[in-house]
Amino acid sequence: MKQVTADPLPSWNDEKAKQSIEAFVQRVTTAGGKDFVPPAERIAVFDNDGTLWPENPTLFQLAFLLYELQRRAPTEPELAADPMVQAALAGDFAKLLEGGRYAGLLRVGALTHAGITTDEFRATVEDWLASARHPKYGQPYDQLTYQPMQELLHFMRANGFKNFIVSGGGADFMRVWVERVYGVPPEQVIGTTARTTFELRDSGPVLTKTIDHLFVDDKEGKPVGIWQFIGRRPIACFGNSDGDLAMLQYTTINNPRLSFGLIVHHTDGDREYAYDAKPKSSGKLVEALKEAPQRGWTVVSMKDDWKTIFSFEKR
Amino acid sequence: MKQVTADPLPSWNDEKAKQSIEAFVQRVTTAGGKDFVPPAERIAVFDNDGTLWPENPTLFQLAFLLYELQRRAPTEPELAADPMVQAALAGDFAKLLEGGRYAGLLRVGALTHAGITTDEFRATVEDWLASARHPKYGQPYDQLTYQPMQELLHFMRANGFKNFIVSGGGADFMRVWVERVYGVPPEQVIGTTARTTFELRDSGPVLTKTIDHLFVDDKEGKPVGIWQFIGRRPIACFGNSDGDLAMLQYTTINNPRLSFGLIVHHTDGDREYAYDAKPKSSGKLVEALKEAPQRGWTVVSMKDDWKTIFSFEKR
Repeated sequence: MKQVTADPLPSWNDEKAKQSIEAFVQRVTTAGGKDFVPPAERIAVFDNDGTLWPENPTLFQLAFLLYELQRRAPTEPELAADPMVQAALAGDFAKLLEGGRYAGLLRVGALTHAGITTDEFRATVEDWLASARHPKYGQPYDQLTYQPMQELLHFMRANGFKNFIVSGGGADFMRVWVERVYGVPPEQVIGTTARTTFELRDSGPVLTKTIDHLFVDDKEGKPVGIWQFIGRRPIACFGNSDGDLAMLQYTTINNPRLSFGLIVHHTDGDREYAYDAKPKSSGKLVEALKEAPQRGWTVVSMKDDWKTIFSFEKR
Repeated sequence: MKQVTADPLPSWNDEKAKQSIEAFVQRVTTAGGKDFVPPAERIAVFDNDGTLWPENPTLFQLAFLLYELQRRAPTEPELAADPMVQAALAGDFAKLLEGGRYAGLLRVGALTHAGITTDEFRATVEDWLASARHPKYGQPYDQLTYQPMQELLHFMRANGFKNFIVSGGGADFMRVWVERVYGVPPEQVIGTTARTTFELRDSGPVLTKTIDHLFVDDKEGKPVGIWQFIGRRPIACFGNSDGDLAMLQYTTINNPRLSFGLIVHHTDGDREYAYDAKPKSSGKLVEALKEAPQRGWTVVSMKDDWKTIFSFEKR
C-alpha cells in the first residue's frame, strides 16, 4: 500500500538511480521491517565538490583563494612580491604543486586562510560570495548547487537522516554558507581543518586560524574524519570521485545495517561538465567507478538521471 | 502568565542557581522577546569530569586505564615488564608525570588506548563498565552521574538546545556510553582525540587508534575544540574547574547573544567530595571561581543547591 504524496525528487528522472534511493529509504524507515534503522543511526554523508556543486573549471575554494590574492595584492606589496602568490595570480598551478609536497599551495593557502581570526575569515568568504561570479554560468558560486542533490538532502532529512558534509574543502570555508544553502548546520560539516589558537583580547575572546596540525579530509582521511567527528558508521554515502572511495567502502562494506552508496558521474558536457578519468580540475573517477558494480553502489549519470541540474535553469 | 507544569529540575533546591538557569532559558526561548535565540543557535556545552560525574578519587578514565593494565598484565609479560606500567600499577602517579611532558602517562595511555581498532577499544570500555565498581559508592561508574545535571541536560534539550559534551576525557572513551547515559549522541561529543588510520581488511573496513596528532581538549583547547567541531559559539556553558575557564570566557564574554555560564562547586564532603584549590585528583578551581562574580557566572554549591546528588540515593 503506497501513500500518494508529492514526488520528493522531482528533478530526477524515474530511472534506476532514483528508484534505488527511494527503495533504500523506504526499507530503513519501515517500522517493524527487517531493515529498519533507528533514527539516531540514520547518518548520511555527502561529499561537496563535484557532488553537491561543481568543481570546474577549478575548485570553488581555489577560486576564492585567487579572488582574495587579487583583492589584497594591490595594497599589500609584500604579499604581491611572494613568488608563490605571483605563480597563483598567473595561473601557474604547476609551480604551486612542485616538489610533491604542495609547498606552494600550502603557502598561498596559509596566506589566505591563516593568521586571521575566524570572524575575519568569515567576512572574506562572504565578500567573495557576494561579489564573484562563476565564469561559465555568470552566477554567484552559492547559486550553483545541484537541484537534484538539494532535493535529495531534503528527502533524507525528511526521513529522519542527519546529513553531514564530508569534504576535502575547508570546514571554515563551508560553514559560512552551508546552513543557508543546504540546510546543514555548521556542526554537521567535516572538512579540511587546522587548529586555531584561543586568546582573550580586550574586545573579547578570539580564535585565530593557523595551518598547524593540518587535517586533509580526503581519500582515507574521510573515514578518519567521520570517526573523529561522528563516532559511528554512516549508512548512506554520496560522492563523485576516487577521493570518496574510502568513505564509500567504510559506509557500505560489511555494515551490520542496510547501507547505500551513490556516485555522481559527470556525464553532461552541455549543461555541466563531462569527465571521469581525466578531469580538468579535481574529481578523478576511476577506481570507485570500477568498484561500483561489485559493491552495489548506484551510479548516477547527470545527463540521463537529472531533468534539471541547476535551479536557475527553470527560471 | 506562567504555565503550571511539573518542575523540570526537582533535584535542585529553589535557590538562586536554579532560578538563574530557569530565567535564562525562559528569556532565550520566549518568541518575540528581545533575548530570543533561534533553536539552531541554542548550543550548550557541558564539561564531563566533575560536572556531570565525579572525578574522584581519580579520573574515571584513569580508573579504566588501570583496570585494563591489571587485566592484561598477567597474560602479557612484555606489557607487565614496562617500567611505566609497573609505576601505574603501583599507584606511583608521580613517576608517570615526571619530566613535565607526561611521557609516562602518554606511554600507558598509548598501551591502553592505541594500536587497537575502534571496535576493540569499545569492547574494552564496555567490559570495564560492566565489571568495575567505584571504591566509595560500590556502583558501576556509569551509575554515578549527577542527578541534577541529568535533569538539566533534559531541561535544556526540551527547550530546543543541542547539548555537547566538551571534556578532557577521550572522545572514543565517552562515546561508548554517553548516548545511553546522557542522551547525547556520539556526534555531540568533543573530547581528547588522536587520529585513526583507515584500512580495508578482508573482514571489512577498520579504523585503528593511534596517538598521533593528539589533541588535548582542556583549558584553551576547549574553545579550540568547540570551533573545530561545532563552528559557532555556544550560548550556555557548564563546567567545574579552571580547565573550563577558557570555554566559559568563550561562551559568555561579548557574546552577541544572551549567554549563560555555570560552575559546579564541589562543596559536599559527605555526599560527594569537597575541594577547589587543592583537589586530590583533577578539578582545580581557583581562577574561574575568582572570575565568576565579574562575569556573572552562576556558582552552584553541591551541598546547598542539590537535594539529591545521585539517583541511587533516592532508592
